[in-house]
Amino acid sequence: MGIAEEMGKQQRAISVSEFFEKNRHLLGYDNKAKAMLIIVKEAVDNGLDACEEAGILPEMYVGIKQLAEEKFQITVKDNGPGIIKEQVPKIYGSLLYGSKFHRLKQSRGQQGLGISCAVLYSQLTTGSATTVRTSTGNGKTHMYQLRIDVGKNKPIVMETSVDENDELWHGTEVTFVSEVTYRENKQSVLEYIKQTAISNPYADIVFDSPNGRVEFKRGVGRLPPEPKEILPHLEGVELGVLMRMLESTKARTLHSFLTTEFSRLGKHSANEILLKAGITREMNGQNIPDTKLKPGKVSDEMARMIVEAVKHVRLLRPPTDCLSPLGMQLIESGLLKELNPDFVSSVTRPPEVYRGWPFQIEAGLAFGGSIQSFSLLRFANRVPLLYQGGACAMTKAVQETDWRRYSIDVNRHSVEEPLVVFVHISSVWVPFTSESKEAIANYDVIIREIKLALQECARKLSIWLSGKRKKALLSKKKSVFERYAAETAHALSIITDLPEEEIERKIIDIINERWEELNGGKTDEVEGEDHETGEGSNGSAPEEGESEYSASGEKSF
Amino acid sequence: MGIAEEMGKQQRAISVSEFFEKNRHLLGYDNKAKAMLIIVKEAVDNGLDACEEAGILPEMYVGIKQLAEEKFQITVKDNGPGIIKEQVPKIYGSLLYGSKFHRLKQSRGQQGLGISCAVLYSQLTTGSATTVRTSTGNGKTHMYQLRIDVGKNKPIVMETSVDENDELWHGTEVTFVSEVTYRENKQSVLEYIKQTAISNPYADIVFDSPNGRVEFKRGVGRLPPEPKEILPHLEGVELGVLMRMLESTKARTLHSFLTTEFSRLGKHSANEILLKAGITREMNGQNIPDTKLKPGKVSDEMARMIVEAVKHVRLLRPPTDCLSPLGMQLIESGLLKELNPDFVSSVTRPPEVYRGWPFQIEAGLAFGGSIQSFSLLRFANRVPLLYQGGACAMTKAVQETDWRRYSIDVNRHSVEEPLVVFVHISSVWVPFTSESKEAIANYDVIIREIKLALQECARKLSIWLSGKRKKALLSKKKSVFERYAAETAHALSIITDLPEEEIERKIIDIINERWEELNGGKTDEVEGEDHETGEGSNGSAPEEGESEYSASGEKSF
Repeated sequence: MGIAEEMGKQQRAISVSEFFEKNRHLLGYDNKAKAMLIIVKEAVDNGLDACEEAGILPEMYVGIKQLAEEKFQITVKDNGPGIIKEQVPKIYGSLLYGSKFHRLKQSRGQQGLGISCAVLYSQLTTGSATTVRTSTGNGKTHMYQLRIDVGKNKPIVMETSVDENDELWHGTEVTFVSEVTYRENKQSVLEYIKQTAISNPYADIVFDSPNGRVEFKRGVGRLPPEPKEILPHLEGVELGVLMRMLESTKARTLHSFLTTEFSRLGKHSANEILLKAGITREMNGQNIPDTKLKPGKVSDEMARMIVEAVKHVRLLRPPTDCLSPLGMQLIESGLLKELNPDFVSSVTRPPEVYRGWPFQIEAGLAFGGSIQSFSLLRFANRVPLLYQGGACAMTKAVQETDWRRYSIDVNRHSVEEPLVVFVHISSVWVPFTSESKEAIANYDVIIREIKLALQECARKLSIWLSGKRKKALLSKKKSVFERYAAETAHALSIITDLPEEEIERKIIDIINERWEELNGGKTDEVEGEDHETGEGSNGSAPEEGESEYSASGEKSF
Repeated sequence: MGIAEEMGKQQRAISVSEFFEKNRHLLGYDNKAKAMLIIVKEAVDNGLDACEEAGILPEMYVGIKQLAEEKFQITVKDNGPGIIKEQVPKIYGSLLYGSKFHRLKQSRGQQGLGISCAVLYSQLTTGSATTVRTSTGNGKTHMYQLRIDVGKNKPIVMETSVDENDELWHGTEVTFVSEVTYRENKQSVLEYIKQTAISNPYADIVFDSPNGRVEFKRGVGRLPPEPKEILPHLEGVELGVLMRMLESTKARTLHSFLTTEFSRLGKHSANEILLKAGITREMNGQNIPDTKLKPGKVSDEMARMIVEAVKHVRLLRPPTDCLSPLGMQLIESGLLKELNPDFVSSVTRPPEVYRGWPFQIEAGLAFGGSIQSFSLLRFANRVPLLYQGGACAMTKAVQETDWRRYSIDVNRHSVEEPLVVFVHISSVWVPFTSESKEAIANYDVIIREIKLALQECARKLSIWLSGKRKKALLSKKKSVFERYAAETAHALSIITDLPEEEIERKIIDIINERWEELNGGKTDEVEGEDHETGEGSNGSAPEEGESEYSASGEKSF
């Protein structure tokens, strides 16, 4: 039958560009307003990543110019280290190309897909090439105008030039022309930049929106510590990956492969794994680990036994210096700077591990002041998440928190207070639910960590709130006493025959004296301790470096 | 600064296999039970596609054998045309390879990702190679054991052999060894196969489950008409794609490019588009369409004007013979065969268009009999959809249907009747919400079509139900008359002095006579017409080929 041959003729390879062109909703390009946000986000994420990696305090510029009803020019510029000219076409002009996929290091980008998909979306919708200008600070600026050859997933350079600079700038500027729409609502570019300013308070950001310029000044003048790259942890490595690593390793023995290519795996643990996996040799009638076996001699079955053995050997947890949390000071600085609240508190939890990947949760609460109502701000590796809140572990943790225990008003599952909740996950591999990187997967350990962080912050808020509310009560009492002071003085003057004015002055003095006494902090503290005791049952230790500041900057308790 | 150079060194390409290995949740591999379902589904989908394309009545075999606690051997065999040996490694051993992505034809597979990802998942979790045996009916069986070279996205053939057959079989058998779990619940392999038997009633399916053999015999002996491949419709083509088509076209003029490479675009419409796009030349002082312009001379701006012009020119809709709906007979045959209901009705709606892609909705209702409660069965190009029902346009349409109007009991938004709703979308490009192909995107026109289909089916059910319920009422009345016949006869015999037995016999005769009269169908019909009139407001014409059968096979109205 010729049918199989005929069908064979139609079989051919599909380029990854073709795939994502047809399936661009996978990367979040569902509608034109969201497309605008994603393009800005990918470029800003890349810029911030580059600055931080080079240890440069970021200065970001975002410019959006309307060209036609649904056609905009989007420019994003950073002051990062720049890109060497050979790499520019590949980074912007082919999908699945980059430095972040093959390493384990906390960064905003992960896949090498984001920025090239923005180029792809622009050419698909407006036919326009994307312009990249970059300088590494060597006095030359390289300009490229490029498109993607979709069938081949390769860059097509339309134009290129080199300028000699007068000033020695460094950084990268990218300009897209895309079919998008601009709005300023909860899921807009403006909101994204505002939240980026909160989670990156060491960055200066200038935003030229179609409605005018908005500037976000940095609140602190130092970068958080640079995250370190780590080796994979054997617990999170699947059999197929292990087999591949064995094929390409340069280690001379299986034993040294285990101790050098994995995180926190010492000689002792390696021996134990070999023993459990039955990879042994005989010595003096005893089975000892075969430490001399060459990686090339490890059979598929042995590899399988190693993966099995790992489940029964207690390994050290992965190191956590690979994580770079913001830290409490930066969180509070960001919240104070952009939200102008009456109170902030924050907490950085100790690192934890899901599926062999380290992660760390931070939370912050901002209350009152310019804040009008409740909202949740979600962040992953310092990037704001604006979409798919409903599917996110952070939303779930907020919903599962019993806010009422912390004197926070809740009506039918929604918090009814002027409260902003900030949640941040740092990880070398953030578990997003989809490629559009909008929501965090619902791992139990992640939800638990978020809830503990929220509880710690909420406890502080509750103390501050009860102090504030007690003060309000006292203040009411005081005004009642003051109101009746004259009348009381009049009555007492009849009884005692002393002058009315003197008695009234004395009463007022007593009220004020008592008032000062009550406001000396002592009462609040007792009240506060009551609270801490009242909910010691959640099991979280208070020593995990909590801190909180009143908006005025002084420690309030 | 050396930083840019240093960073440049780390930049490299990521293979699409590496990408999906790390992001396998994008294809639905979230957990081990779902992984089992997906592997079976991808193999069965491919087998059914191959059979239908070759005009062969499908005979599918699915075998699942437990090897260890979470390790199973999964075998799927079809009697399709087989695969020529050169293509086997590419189809199974590289991602994004296939015949279905680059054409517009209704089929189960779309991307060239599914089956190779099953190979990838198997080697990742158990390290096992996948075995493929295939014959094109030429007396030879080719066997391949293969893996994927993940870094290169290329097949690695571990072993290969050729056997001379005794019998001239044709088809393909694939065997995976994967880390999965087996269960028999609502989202299981068993449920998937059962639903596949409903939507493919012309297929024989044998399933050797870990709990024993289940056989699904075909209910009809003919295939539905083969869907035709179509050209793209200009309305659905984006600028970037148009520009690429212009670059690679063999047409000699832009005008002939438009009329030969797009669906249903005649000379007249092409002229109109050129005119609107301002692609004209002067003749006798008049602007006429420039029909001689070569494709190579079409500037990007001209292409943009063409896309713009299309919005203002009325084009013929895409042809609909590219769609192969199941048809009412097959739907009802499938529902009767697998669900054994008292009543079925079905409807095939006329084709419609979303974003330039043709699609067609079919619906069926099965009521009573062996059915215990309400459920919705969702299908796309004859494939059952078991996950993400909440996100699906079909679920939304069912929820938005006012079932009460059709005498169907609803309590708090859930239907409280023994009712199975069947919904099927056929399309050359099914708009799934994600790459795991589990839910239909919420396009308005699709939801509207589903609702119209459901209303048409529900109207028929309502007539049958009211007939049935009236009959039940009459039957109750009859038994009351019968119960009192003897007593009445006794009283009348005293009055009339006639023998009691004769009177009783006459009464019974009258009851039976009247009973037969009432059950002659006349009453039902009147009742039925009342209903049809009562809801003529939904605007759907009744001539769209509705039909319904009672379970016994005869037309009931």
